[in-house]
Formats: sequence, C-alpha cells, structure tokens
Amino acid sequence: MRRYVIGVLSILLAIPIGAAETGPSQPILGFSDAAARIEREWETKFQAIPKPDNLREYMKRLSARPHHVGSPYDKDNAEWILAKFKDWGLDAHLETFDVLFPTPKERLVEMLEPTRFVAKLAEPTVPGDPTSSQHDEQLPTYNAYSLDGDVTAPLVYVNYGIPEDYEQLERLGISVKGAIVIARYGSSWRGIKPKVAAEHGAVGCLIYSDPRDDGYFEGDVFPEGAWRPRDGAQRGSVMDMALYPGDPLTPGVGATKDAKRLELKEVKTLTKIPVLPISYGDAQPLLAALQGPVAPEKWRGALPITYHLGRGPAKVHLRVKANWDIKPINDVIVRIPGALYPDEWIVRGNHHDAWVNGAEDPVSAMAVELEEARALGALLQQGWRPKRTIIYCAWDGEEEGLLGSTEWAEAHAGELARHAVAYINTDANGRGFLSSSGSHTLEKLVNGVAKDVVDPEKNISVWKRSQLHSIADADSPEKREEVRKRADWRIPALGSGSDYTVFIDHLGVASLNLYFGGEDGGGIYHSIYDDFYWYTHFSDRDFVYGRALAQTVGLTVMRLADAELLPFDFTDFADTVRKYAEELKNLHKKEREDILERNRQLDEDVFTATADPRKISFPPPREAVPPFLDFAPLDNAVEAVALKAEKYSKTLDKARDYGMDKLDSAAVQRVNALLLESERKLTLPEGLPLRPWFKHQIYAPGLYTGYAVKTLPGAREAIEQKKWPEAESEIARVAKVLEGEAQLIDSAADELGKAMR
Amino acid sequence: MRRYVIGVLSILLAIPIGAAETGPSQPILGFSDAAARIEREWETKFQAIPKPDNLREYMKRLSARPHHVGSPYDKDNAEWILAKFKDWGLDAHLETFDVLFPTPKERLVEMLEPTRFVAKLAEPTVPGDPTSSQHDEQLPTYNAYSLDGDVTAPLVYVNYGIPEDYEQLERLGISVKGAIVIARYGSSWRGIKPKVAAEHGAVGCLIYSDPRDDGYFEGDVFPEGAWRPRDGAQRGSVMDMALYPGDPLTPGVGATKDAKRLELKEVKTLTKIPVLPISYGDAQPLLAALQGPVAPEKWRGALPITYHLGRGPAKVHLRVKANWDIKPINDVIVRIPGALYPDEWIVRGNHHDAWVNGAEDPVSAMAVELEEARALGALLQQGWRPKRTIIYCAWDGEEEGLLGSTEWAEAHAGELARHAVAYINTDANGRGFLSSSGSHTLEKLVNGVAKDVVDPEKNISVWKRSQLHSIADADSPEKREEVRKRADWRIPALGSGSDYTVFIDHLGVASLNLYFGGEDGGGIYHSIYDDFYWYTHFSDRDFVYGRALAQTVGLTVMRLADAELLPFDFTDFADTVRKYAEELKNLHKKEREDILERNRQLDEDVFTATADPRKISFPPPREAVPPFLDFAPLDNAVEAVALKAEKYSKTLDKARDYGMDKLDSAAVQRVNALLLESERKLTLPEGLPLRPWFKHQIYAPGLYTGYAVKTLPGAREAIEQKKWPEAESEIARVAKVLEGEAQLIDSAADELGKAMR
Repeated sequence: MRRYVIGVLSILLAIPIGAAETGPSQPILGFSDAAARIEREWETKFQAIPKPDNLREYMKRLSARPHHVGSPYDKDNAEWILAKFKDWGLDAHLETFDVLFPTPKERLVEMLEPTRFVAKLAEPTVPGDPTSSQHDEQLPTYNAYSLDGDVTAPLVYVNYGIPEDYEQLERLGISVKGAIVIARYGSSWRGIKPKVAAEHGAVGCLIYSDPRDDGYFEGDVFPEGAWRPRDGAQRGSVMDMALYPGDPLTPGVGATKDAKRLELKEVKTLTKIPVLPISYGDAQPLLAALQGPVAPEKWRGALPITYHLGRGPAKVHLRVKANWDIKPINDVIVRIPGALYPDEWIVRGNHHDAWVNGAEDPVSAMAVELEEARALGALLQQGWRPKRTIIYCAWDGEEEGLLGSTEWAEAHAGELARHAVAYINTDANGRGFLSSSGSHTLEKLVNGVAKDVVDPEKNISVWKRSQLHSIADADSPEKREEVRKRADWRIPALGSGSDYTVFIDHLGVASLNLYFGGEDGGGIYHSIYDDFYWYTHFSDRDFVYGRALAQTVGLTVMRLADAELLPFDFTDFADTVRKYAEELKNLHKKEREDILERNRQLDEDVFTATADPRKISFPPPREAVPPFLDFAPLDNAVEAVALKAEKYSKTLDKARDYGMDKLDSAAVQRVNALLLESERKLTLPEGLPLRPWFKHQIYAPGLYTGYAVKTLPGAREAIEQKKWPEAESEIARVAKVLEGEAQLIDSAADELGKAMR
Repeated sequence: MRRYVIGVLSILLAIPIGAAETGPSQPILGFSDAAARIEREWETKFQAIPKPDNLREYMKRLSARPHHVGSPYDKDNAEWILAKFKDWGLDAHLETFDVLFPTPKERLVEMLEPTRFVAKLAEPTVPGDPTSSQHDEQLPTYNAYSLDGDVTAPLVYVNYGIPEDYEQLERLGISVKGAIVIARYGSSWRGIKPKVAAEHGAVGCLIYSDPRDDGYFEGDVFPEGAWRPRDGAQRGSVMDMALYPGDPLTPGVGATKDAKRLELKEVKTLTKIPVLPISYGDAQPLLAALQGPVAPEKWRGALPITYHLGRGPAKVHLRVKANWDIKPINDVIVRIPGALYPDEWIVRGNHHDAWVNGAEDPVSAMAVELEEARALGALLQQGWRPKRTIIYCAWDGEEEGLLGSTEWAEAHAGELARHAVAYINTDANGRGFLSSSGSHTLEKLVNGVAKDVVDPEKNISVWKRSQLHSIADADSPEKREEVRKRADWRIPALGSGSDYTVFIDHLGVASLNLYFGGEDGGGIYHSIYDDFYWYTHFSDRDFVYGRALAQTVGLTVMRLADAELLPFDFTDFADTVRKYAEELKNLHKKEREDILERNRQLDEDVFTATADPRKISFPPPREAVPPFLDFAPLDNAVEAVALKAEKYSKTLDKARDYGMDKLDSAAVQRVNALLLESERKLTLPEGLPLRPWFKHQIYAPGLYTGYAVKTLPGAREAIEQKKWPEAESEIARVAKVLEGEAQLIDSAADELGKAMR
C-alpha cells in the first residue's frame, strides 16, 4: 500500500558470488561452523529454485482482474494462493475476518464559480493495455474511510497539506476556515491531509496528483512511458492510521464474527471531512481558477498555470457518499512446523489484495513470496528441516488500512507475543538497489544475507551495489567515509504503510521490510494502470529482481529458522539508538536557536521592514524560548545498552572460539528465549501519548507524517510540538525502557557465558 | 541591458531621516566638519527636488515609440534629452560614433521532422497596451551579432548551455556535433550560449525563454500580470563581450568617422554559428518533439511536457541573415565644471537606447538621471559650486554591446585616465531594496549615502532596510552575525552587462552601479511589452523609488564632487580582497578534493556499479590531481594592503582630530592625486590572459559567465580551467599589483601626514 520513495528511504546492502565476499566456509551469525556449512548447502539449493518465468505467471494470474476487498477476484485469488501452497506440500488454510469497508455510492466534484466545470473522476481505457478496460469490476477513484458529506465552499490550495504549509498560509493571511482545500499527493501519508485540513477548519478536501510529482515532469506518461497520465488518479485509504490501523470497528482485537464492534459514530479513525482524490486533468481547471497570492515557489507544480493560493474565487461543490458495508477478508496462512523449536515462529508476509489490478502493488512481491514458499516446499521434500516454525501469510485488505495483517495479529496477539521471533515483510518490488528497513537488532542479519545474494544486472553482491550507491549519494565526505568503513550498512527504521506495522509497533516483534528499487519510476500507483502491461513494459520485466528478492527474503527466513543462536545483534542497535539520542538533542538545540533568532528578528523589525506592502504578509508569532531539558537519563541508558551490547558481542566471540556446537543446549535455549523477548522489551503496555495502540517506544510512524518514522517517538514528538514537561517525562520513560533492554542483553550475555561451562 | 537578478546580486544599504542614523551635524567621509555642515544643507536641498511626476513624464515621452540604435526615435530622444539638459542651464552636447549594427533581414525557424512546424517569431499586440501595436517601428526578435547562416540539423536540448551542461551531456552520451542546440535563457549572459555551443561543434543555436524562469511559473503573465506571455521573446546582443565590448570593428579605439576599422571577417566578437531567440510558444513544439534521455531534473522547465535531450528526432531548419550596416549612435554629454579642481572628473551615466520601447530598461533609470541633472542645475542656480567637474552622460547603443559608453570612453581614454575619479552607473530601476555593486574603495562612500536616503515604503533608511533584508536572507548564523556587526554593508564586485564596463575594466576608473529592486518581478525584458503600460501597472508605478534612486545617486555624485579629500577608503577594500584570496585557496582545495574523491570512486567502480543498464551513461574522466600552488605572494600582498589601509585610516582619523580644514591644501591635493590613481593601480597594460582589453586585475566578467564577476580573474579562471602553471604566475601577477596598491596607499598616508605639519 505504501508508496515507496525510492532512494530516500533506501538503505542498502551486497557480494559477488563468483568472487563472493563470504564463501561457502564463511561463518554465519548464530551458527556453529559445522551448522553454517550445512546451512550454506541448503541456501545454495534454495537460491537455485526461484524462476522468473514463474513470477511472471503468478503476476499474470493474480493481476488479471481487479481484486480489491470484497470483490469476486479477491476471494478467487485467495483460494488460488491457498491451492498453490497446498500443491507445494505446505500446510495452508484461510482465516477470515469481517471488516468495515466503505465503497463509493456518490462522488461529485464540480466548480460552480467563476465558471462551471464538472470533474470526470474516471480513468479511461488505454488502447493496448487489456486490463485497463475492466471498468465494471474497477473500484472508482476515491479515498476509503472518508466521511460522507456534501459541501460547497471556496477553494484554497494548500500544497502538500502538512502542518508547515498551514503555518505559511497563516503568514500570508489565508484562512481555510469553511473552505474546501486542494492538496497535492506527496510528502506525507495521504490521510494526514484531510486530518490537518479539518484541524484548521476546512470543510472538504481534494487530493490530486501533480504532474511535478509523478506525471509528465518526471517522464513520459503511460502508455508511452511509466508515468501518470492526465486522467490517472490515486485511490487510497485516508483512515487515521497514526491512531491505529486495521478494522476501524475493532481496535486492538481481531475482527472475528463475534468480536465486540464500535458504532460507526464512535470510530476515531474516519476523516472529519469528506475527501476525494482527483487526477491532474480534473485539478487543472480548479487550480487555474484560483486567485489571491501566488503560491510560494516550492509549492508550485508542473501544470502550465500560475499557482495561486485562493481563497476563491473558485467555488467548489464536493459530494461523497459511501456504502458503509462489512466485508469479509481472507488471509492465507501457511505453517511449516519447526523440528527443534516449534514454539519459536518466523513470520513472513505480503498482501494479495489490490486497489485495482495491482501488478506492482502488491503482486510483484506477492509473486515473490509464492516462489519462496514453493522453494521452501521443495527443500522440505529434499529433507531440509527448519529448527523453528515458519509462518507464511498472504494478507487481504492491506490497501484499506492494513486490515488483514492487523486483524490476524490482533486475533493471535497472545501467541505471537510468546512465540514470534521476527516478521519479514514485502509489498512491491522493482529494479535496482536492495532497500532494507527495520529493527536494528536484525541489521547484522540482513547485512549478512545481502552479501550472499548476487545483483542480476551487475554480478556483484546486492550488498556491494547498494554500498556503492550510498557512496555516490552521500551528501558529505563524513557520511561517505562512514559508508566506506562501517562493516554493516545502516538500515532505516520502519514507519508505517505496510503490514509490518502491527508486528513491530503494536506487538513488539522485530521486523524487516525488503524490496529492490531505484532504477524505474512510475506514476501508476493505486490506479487502473498498475497492471501486467505496465509492469512488464516499465519495471522488472524480466523478473530477475523478483528472483533476487525471493533469494534475499528466503535466506533471511532460513537463517532465522535454522540458527542455533537467534541471529540478533545489539551493537548496531546501540550505535543507532545513540544516533537517535543525538538527533533529539540537536533537534531541541535547533528549536531553541531558531526561536531565539526569530524573536530577535521580531525585535529588530526584520519582517515588517522587509515585507512588500503590495503583498499581505504577517510576521511569525513570538514564541517562548524552550527550556533546557534533562537528557541525562537517556544518555545513561544509551551508555548502558552500548556496554551490555559489547558484553554480549564479546561473549558471542568467546562462544565461537569455544565451539558453538559444544555449548550447553539448555543454556542456549535460555539465551534464545531472552533474544526472542528483546524487541518486546522495547514496548510499553500503555503505548505512546495519545495513541495507546502504538506500544513500541523506539519506532513509530509520525502523528503528522503517517508513513515516515519518528524514532524515540514519545520524546521526539513532544519536542517537535513544544510540549516541554511531556518531553522531559518521555525522555525519562524511553530511558527506562532502554535500561530494561540493557538488563535483558546483560542476562543474555550471562546465560551465554554459562553455556560454556 | 543587463538582466537584473534581483536578490542574488543585491547588496544593500539604509536610515530613518525622521530618526536619522546620521543627523545634520554628523561627519561625512572626506569632509571637514565645517564643510560637512554646508554639504548637508546642499544635500537637503537636493533631496527635495526630484519629483515622481517628472519621472513619469520623462518615461512617457522617452518610451512612447521604439528607440533602438539607428531608429528615428532614438535620435529624437537624444535630441530631446540634449534640449532638456540645456533647458536646465547645463552645458550639453552630442557626441556621435559610427558603429557596426546588424539588423535582421531574414529569420526562419522551422521543424521539418517528425512533424512540420514554423515558428511565429512575432510578439502580438496586447489589447489595452497602446505601444505594443507599433509593429512597424519595432525591431523583430533576434540576437544582434549572430553570424549569418542557413542550417538544417537535429535538435538537442542543452539546458542553459553553459560548460557544465555539456559535461553532463557527455556523460549521458549526447553529442551536439553537427546539431542545432536549444538553450534556455538564464544562468549566464546570453552570448555565452552560442559560444559554448560552437566550441562543442553545434551548427546553430536557439535561445528560448522558459516559463519556469520568467513566465507563468513565476506569476500571472502580461497583461494580467507582470510575467512573460506565451509569445514574448527576449532580444539581445550575443557578441562575445568577454573579449571586448563596444563596436566590433574598432576594439580599443573610439569609433569615430576616421577610425581604423577591422574587416568583418577579422572580427572575433561575432558568434561562430547562427543564433535566434524564440518564445516559449515557439519552443514548446520543438522541445515536445525531442526524444532520447529525459533531461536531468534541474534542467526541466515549466512547459507541460516531458523534457527530453534529443538528439532528434526533431530536425530543425534555422536561417538568419542580417543587414550588416554601420549606424550612428548619439551620446549626450553634460559638463558641469569644477570650481576648485576642474581636472578631477566625476562621471555619471545611463543609456537612453532600448531594444524596443524600453520603459524599464533603460528609461526607468534614464528618467532618474534626468531628474538628478535637473536638480543639480537648480542647485547651481542657487549658488552651489562643486569642487570637481561633473560629467553626465546619456549613452546610446548600450543594448547592442555597450557601444555608446565604450566608444566614448575609448575616444577619451587619455583624458579619463588622467582625470576620472569615479564612474556612477544606473540602467533600470524598480521597487524594493537598494542594490549597490562596484569598487570596494567606494564601499564606505555608498554606505554613508544610503544611510541618508529614506525608503519610500518603510520610512527607514534604505541602508537599514537592506541590512534587515540581508539578515532575513542570510543562509548561516555566521553570515547573519556579520551583517549585524559590520559597520558597512558588503558590496558585490561588478561583472559586466552595463555601461560601467569600459570604465572599471578597461580604464580602471572606480565605479558603482546602483538600483532598487527585489519586490516586483517581471518577464518583459527586451520584449515589446517593456513599455509605459507595463511599468506603470507592475513596477514602481508611483515613481517613489525613482525619486529614491535620484537621491542616492545625486548624493553619491555630490560627495565625490564636493569632498575636500576624495572619499576613498581602503580598509573595506583590504577586507574584501582578503576574502577573495581565501575563496581562491578554497576553490583550489575543493578542486583537489573533488578530483581525489572522483578518482577514488572510479577505482571503486562506483559509476559502473550504480548505473542503470537501461540508460546510457558514462563515468566521468579520470583527472590528474592538482598540484599544490604557491599562494604566499598573494597572502603577503593582501597583508601589505591591509597594513597600509590601516595606516591611511589612522592618519585620516588624526587629520580629523587635527581639523580637516586646517590641512595644507597642496598636500591634500597630492593625496587626492594619489587617490584618483588608486583604481588605475589595479590595472595592468597587458590586461588579462587571452583578453588584453580587460585591464583590471581584481574584477572582470567571467569568460564563461559573461555577466557574473570573477574576482582576481587571472588566477581564478586559471584555477577553474585547471591551468596550473598559469594559475601560479597569475597569483604572482595579481600579488604584484596589490603590492603596488599598498605602496600607493602608503604614499597617500604619508602625504596626508605631511599635510598636518
């Protein structure tokens, strides 16, 4: 569901297999030398199995017709996937939940003044693209979980519609109170736009795709090129997922038949105002009819008009009504029981539902998951026996709000809390560089895997290729040197926007999200043009990166499932948390300096003296200077984590020297039990301020970013929002969590030490 | 003629006169206290004279018809200006030169493939704008001094067409050899574009105005707004003024009747390939027909197309033929003889010719010069007697290549070398912030003046307003602190693009260029829409900034003319030259580091490993690592200048304490004679490498920028072009020049000391 911002979020990992960085006799994190040799043999067999032709066939089948939640083909796909899993000898079943899923009944956008214009709100058939003509089965363009409404009001252009944009509007004397805002897609999760608009008093919201962001400005438009055509629009959910994702009626519990459900009017995650997405073809007449100040330079898109802010004279009528139905969703679940530790689960998932045909999102990666499962089935037949239980999941209802994964994980929360080692997610795939985000305790694991997978275009490891990409992209010599010298590539933290959310944020299961990208762009996201024709013309058309992703994820799953000692590492985690703590201090320092400077300029009269009297503008408000904060508890906790991480790492070295295969196995199991708990230790039952569903104290999607992560979120968002007492108590709170993590690591090191006696 | 890049070049100066920073009894640089009191009385009288209504009337008259070189109204305007000067009691005359001035005979741009399209090459009448319909008298859109030619070739888009753009094209595998290039206006002086295109083997050049740069992207287009309409095109000269400006046939000498003239084929400043400017209306079909790689993001403009580079399939036929005529130009010269030192001349100029009606360029500032002259005439009638001779000049033929100023100054080179104290230039004017550029020996003078002129919108001094603007604009806390603490505002150095060029660069006369700007934009530059209607709707429509400019320039001229001791200062000059020397060292250091890093990345295979195999790209070439250079002579010379500047400044303080009016007047005259020489001392008779006409060793327009200045140009351009032996010898050469300047300052200080005995 999430739009991959390629290259920005990417963090990147790679080895030539010919001249491989890690050869067949190299150690693997968590494995004895003997076990590593055997593991490498199985991995070599595994890597040989995935076939691009199969990926192509799966995509052709799964994207042949629209398959959104509740559609016949969605169910059909689930059953086909189930049958495939069974064909490959795997133990698979469906799990069904019943969720609120509004679909459009009425949609109208018309301009009444200064001239009349009625928006098409329709994506036309593209000749040559066979599935683009399946209009009877396509969901119309709309934003799911928009409130019903019928409003007529003057229009205001609000850029991306994020909080900073409204600060700027205020300085320019533009109010959105009682207005309909038109925001462009991008910069935030779309659900943030109506949320912030409503907070500022707007009565309706249009979201359009500016050609600057994914249309002709970027490249030739479909079908000549990969980018969004004039009438293409982006569907998408606008529920307030920063509060909680999943079925709006059943927060925190699985949406089973007999689950207790909220009344619609009690639901907090619906929008407060009606919203509709439109194409740039529909947006241009509306934007061209605005007058008022010219939009700030960075707000201007690529339409051939002067971008004005309004408000008005354009007056718009917006009507949105939905069928507020309960629909079934079907998750497909596979269970490969562990031979030695069946109660330690490795969970792997990708969604199968789409907004329309969804060849890229999600089928490009769903096909990969299928091919992994086929390969694991083949290994099992050859005698491979994973130590731990592996659970493969094909989620339904991801697009609407991570429904399938959230409801399943909420329904199985107790078991998952006891058993889940890690969750590995994918969502879409393309050509280019491996991107891996997630829990930093898994950073070393994924770095190791990436060194053993070969890039299909360059015949070097995917780790190496991504490292070189980061060297090329580094914006300072210091960052470049770090990339060159650091043994592991840094992975970014996870925000939200895909099915890992419930695992990492709600349950505290260490998670990873993986994909390849960066070489091909496109503007078919959540449109009818995200289909087999588009993907096989403009993306990984040979499916060789699909194979590489299957190899990468498969190896990650196998190492987690086969390792004697769970492949968690805490030195990279400690290094990263230290970085976050520094960021927090710098953020606070910068806020102080900025406010001091701005107040000084207010004293000097800078704003009034430099303002153009022909243009309305107001000086920014004077703000209280932030107090100094006590960061000492955080510094102490970070230090404790670092010390214990070092201790664990040294003990592990000793264990390697001692001989991993000679370790006392009961003690090893006590270590594994602690490691399995290590991400859970980073959560608190009360969750984050204002959003108790989000339990993780190190990572969370931002309340006002939606996708993008806020690390140390309680403290960071308090500082951003200038809530100083809360900031200080949140610093103390996360410090305590980290102290707890340090203790856990300490215990794990001690237990590991005992295993050598 | 020059396009004012508002806000970037601005450097900025201001005092409330109500609560003025400098009151009536404040000292003035170069004046005894007694003389300062008298001066302030005259200045107060002067400031009261200029009237906005007069400025409006002058503009209406001068811009009533097209008045390019050789047109009837150009001559008519010269005679009208002459008559006005005489009316105001001033001694005025015409000086006529005969210059090469090609005008268009044939102009054709047509696309032959993949579809046929013939460019309009015409700017239509705008209803409501009366002068826009004077098509019979308007010069067609063209680039003067383009070679005649008739070429048919595939098209390539080259962005701004500066050298870096061709480096990028090369890495993308695009050659312009045998092609016609299409470049957009901006980033460099337009004459650079065909020059660099020809150096890379192109056979023709189109230059268009992208709406991103001065069309609808920036604001509403004319006549609704100030910006360039679809069919508006920018005329302009493309002679290679970085070699020498002025009449191409008479380099270095005045183009008098009997001057020795080059043959046309000997002229080096004509373009090497044919060039035409076009509108974005004409450019869009050509650009839309290009295929090949998508242009890099920063190259893309605001047309609603995907910008491709080509080459082809668009195939273009370009034909340009000119009437290569000799035309007369008429400078109007006023002489106000000095009462005490008639052989010390203060020269003040603005051009009167335009490309078409030229209300903004040049009439907005030509009117200001007229009003200054009227005011000086009035003061003379009231009994004011300037100590020095003042020469007011209304130049002809500026647009074509600074013809009027260059030929006059070349014709009077000997006298000017002996007598000229300073040259003060203006060229156009608008609303906003005072911009002042020029010789740093005059920085203190212009800062002082700016503190005594009131901003018409804000009732604070123009100095204060610009200082606050710079605080708002500063991009680092360090720069902001410098703006707050430095007594004088830093002024940027002069490049080229207006009539100061011959004075500062060729003759070494200390120069200043002044204007107000930054509040209004516009896209009518060098089009038929730069007219009275446009100016009085979208710029300084009340002419209050015109009055402020008359006050600023008038006071500058008066202080230069009336001071007992010429108001030169060397501490700001020393401070600035030190900055330039540091820049040079940093430039060299950065080149070293960049080449080392790039070579390292070549070793690591970064470029090959990260390249997308579906796109053509080549790694950059490996370059030799620059040697370390001997900057010691420059450092020593800068130190010497700083020490002597300090010595002169302290001696001046002593002289103030002693009583300026008690100084020995013969000694003062010896000091003044040295000060008058001080800018000449910064020149060398042999000029700069490859362009002997440019004598100044501290300032010059860049060989590949055209407008933008290169300071310490010999050394800087050698470093930029990686000519290491030349860099080292140029460092030594400019060091020697600065040592000479230090000696002159030392002598001036000694002479001033003697005046106290």
